Amino acid sequence: MERFVSMRRENRDRFHEETLDPEDWESMRELGHRMLNDMIEYMKNVRERPVWQHASNQVKSHFNRPLPIDPQPPKQIYEEFVKYVLPYPLGNIHPRFWGWALGTGTVFGAFAELLAGSMNTNTGGGGHHSAVHVEKQVIDWIKEMLKFPASASGVLTSGCSAANLIGLTVARNTKAGIDLRRKGLREMPHKMTLYASQEIHSSIQKAVEIIGLGSEALHLVPVNDDFQIDLQELKATISRDRKEGATPFCVVGAAGTINTGSIDDLNGLTEICQKESLWLHVDGAFGAWAALDPFARKKVSGIERADSLALDLHKWMYMPYEIGCVLVQNEEYHRKAFSLTPKYLAHGEGGRGITGNDLPWFSDYDFLLSRRFRALKAWMSLKLHGSRKYGRLIQQNIEQAHYLAEQVNTQPELELSAPVPLNIVCFRYVPPDMDEAALNELNKKIVVELHEQGATVISGTIIKDKYVLRAANVNHRSRREDFDILLREVISTGKKLTIAHE
Amino acid sequence: MERFVSMRRENRDRFHEETLDPEDWESMRELGHRMLNDMIEYMKNVRERPVWQHASNQVKSHFNRPLPIDPQPPKQIYEEFVKYVLPYPLGNIHPRFWGWALGTGTVFGAFAELLAGSMNTNTGGGGHHSAVHVEKQVIDWIKEMLKFPASASGVLTSGCSAANLIGLTVARNTKAGIDLRRKGLREMPHKMTLYASQEIHSSIQKAVEIIGLGSEALHLVPVNDDFQIDLQELKATISRDRKEGATPFCVVGAAGTINTGSIDDLNGLTEICQKESLWLHVDGAFGAWAALDPFARKKVSGIERADSLALDLHKWMYMPYEIGCVLVQNEEYHRKAFSLTPKYLAHGEGGRGITGNDLPWFSDYDFLLSRRFRALKAWMSLKLHGSRKYGRLIQQNIEQAHYLAEQVNTQPELELSAPVPLNIVCFRYVPPDMDEAALNELNKKIVVELHEQGATVISGTIIKDKYVLRAANVNHRSRREDFDILLREVISTGKKLTIAHE
Repeated sequence: MERFVSMRRENRDRFHEETLDPEDWESMRELGHRMLNDMIEYMKNVRERPVWQHASNQVKSHFNRPLPIDPQPPKQIYEEFVKYVLPYPLGNIHPRFWGWALGTGTVFGAFAELLAGSMNTNTGGGGHHSAVHVEKQVIDWIKEMLKFPASASGVLTSGCSAANLIGLTVARNTKAGIDLRRKGLREMPHKMTLYASQEIHSSIQKAVEIIGLGSEALHLVPVNDDFQIDLQELKATISRDRKEGATPFCVVGAAGTINTGSIDDLNGLTEICQKESLWLHVDGAFGAWAALDPFARKKVSGIERADSLALDLHKWMYMPYEIGCVLVQNEEYHRKAFSLTPKYLAHGEGGRGITGNDLPWFSDYDFLLSRRFRALKAWMSLKLHGSRKYGRLIQQNIEQAHYLAEQVNTQPELELSAPVPLNIVCFRYVPPDMDEAALNELNKKIVVELHEQGATVISGTIIKDKYVLRAANVNHRSRREDFDILLREVISTGKKLTIAHE
Repeated sequence: MERFVSMRRENRDRFHEETLDPEDWESMRELGHRMLNDMIEYMKNVRERPVWQHASNQVKSHFNRPLPIDPQPPKQIYEEFVKYVLPYPLGNIHPRFWGWALGTGTVFGAFAELLAGSMNTNTGGGGHHSAVHVEKQVIDWIKEMLKFPASASGVLTSGCSAANLIGLTVARNTKAGIDLRRKGLREMPHKMTLYASQEIHSSIQKAVEIIGLGSEALHLVPVNDDFQIDLQELKATISRDRKEGATPFCVVGAAGTINTGSIDDLNGLTEICQKESLWLHVDGAFGAWAALDPFARKKVSGIERADSLALDLHKWMYMPYEIGCVLVQNEEYHRKAFSLTPKYLAHGEGGRGITGNDLPWFSDYDFLLSRRFRALKAWMSLKLHGSRKYGRLIQQNIEQAHYLAEQVNTQPELELSAPVPLNIVCFRYVPPDMDEAALNELNKKIVVELHEQGATVISGTIIKDKYVLRAANVNHRSRREDFDILLREVISTGKKLTIAHE
């Protein structure tokens, strides 16, 4: 087999071995300490900065450079970061950011990212190493918090989009009735259909499209006045589809819709699914964590009976991006949908060597093989705060949302646009004598102007054909006074824009 | 709308607002500096530790605890980390780890994780913030390094599994001929088939299963003596499938197979795909980066013509987990497969506010909405080292693999099992007078014993029905002497096991 190695002998001897480790460890260490100090200050003083601000054209053009060919001193790179990156964040760690549903993160969580990045462990395969123990522990704790049985399987994901994709893939494969992994959807004798409310998150549609069902397979059912899926309509739709020859296989419940934070009647959905032999997947991105608040807990009653549950830990558990989780009631279904063991990934037998098979290989439950040590920040954070404090913070966010809603109700220029069952408040600015089209335009402009002013950030959405302002509160840094500022800003911005408009 | 806010008034007034920010910033800062020092030492002294070691039962039982209800002091948590987590890694940052194809990471990369975790930016949506500029810049640089046209689209992913999933979804949707996102695969008039060599990575099969094609749609074509896809066989298979009524739509080329590191003839594949109107997706997990080595560059010639290209930056670009990328030649096809804009994610118009539409929304090219600031470590690392140094390191890894292969050839007890086109060496221990079954068993045991001894870590695979030892070198810390140690350990372990066996 001499030919195997003949290729490049001529080059070899002139070869000087090098590494990407620092040449000067001490100055790298110093730089690290400087970064750490700066980051502490950055997080500590976030309240003193604008929530968001425009990057100048100079900043923008800094990121339009040719590929760096030669090395640059680390200190200089860090200074560029401080000048061009750090001052122009999206703003979601700020106490007055309530746009979309974005997490705030914590100091200890950021530290955990340094530790995980230093260990640089891959948790995709290989049973025997500490990161696998930590991930298993974190999943056990999540099951405990959400009252899932200990026998359920789970895997940490980048977030809820990935968790929904996994949950729906398990549902599809389990309910197909044919060997779908081998045969594919074209071999299905009937069209597989699934159901969710019109308020369901877009990641469900995206997952349905990716896994090949097509968005037409996703039947969106109307909601009641509380923005929950209408159970009678759901039953009627399923029954109609069956008559038309489709194969209903899954209902997706929402625990915390993105528009209003409403939670479907999960016990009602469980009963329907059991009766109809359907899989119940729950998208619990943030809302699942209402389970930790003794007052809100009853709203997610039944969540522990879902066949699969997707949720985030970087939203309402306040951990840094990315961390989500999917739990599957039946471990075997989960594993059967994702386990694939080629020769080069053979799991060892018994407890010897790295590949011993007495611990889970998370790649058997995930579509990823390269998986960072995201469990560490969850393990450290849950220990630091304890589940009770998380419960109190979630309760606090809900209380603050109700406070905001009450304040909206006291202002004649403002109008509440939807119920506030959880932590999301939809409202709008309604000056007298303005038609609906103009109100929509005005409120759209208010969102953008608020961004530009930088004191508060909210986003907008459409509720019953009306464009509304929307504050989603998963922010552990917000105080009541921050919501007062929000309303003050909305009203003054609304006034200013109305005058400009007249 | 009074009823909207009536729910919990009774609880509100007893409410004391709190936060997850540290109560004592100074002691948290001190702890951070201690962590940073420890991590520097951990990375600096990695060579002095075993590559891998067993966690004791005491360690294991530490991760089998009930949910923490109450807070625990941060220092104590960190000390648990130091005692129970840090000493038991998978081992992939060690200079003598060559198992599977796992990345080594860098110090600066770990620092970047601290910065990204502190900023905690979400890059899923929202155009106007620095992380979007950084990600765009990094993708531009990746295109530049791989000679992709500037007009191509791209998105950073968790790794190649996600990148393959995205690439194949775009291929499927673009080539279907029907509106697949809406209609789903069951409406396809013909079975869609795709092609790859028998050596293709399992993530391709996993993606094919997830996207609903079924693994039977993936036709595995034999390889030639260099473990490259056999182009004649490929053409014959496509033609046979067409005659049988299937719709071939895609060929997946390998740039660096996982077993041997072989690279398919990418120009040959491009020609076939153009002639047959097929999509060419290239899985370039680590091998794509051969493009940076002036000597190996020609092996990946043609990669810039792929319709889509998936690759990792946490393997052969040595960055910390997770970071991969998918490039798509035609931006419109990419966006059409993934863009989905519900009301609450409406992109703004013009340059005002966060949601201005003059910058990409990466969620339009990805299945994730929650996306951490993974671009930062790539931006910082590429600037720190410069592309030329990456090229030298990649060259060094290839040279080292050839050195290892040569040394294998000088040892009568060892046998090279496959060509070494890149950075992977497959070989086995072959004492005289042993049949194939016994050789397989013996070499399997060698892998496990090497793990147990902790001096080196390699994994195993099967090449032409023989179980072989496999060293995959994407390690910037390895030196030639480390490979000498590997062979010494393999031979002594082989001898020991053979004697024990007799």
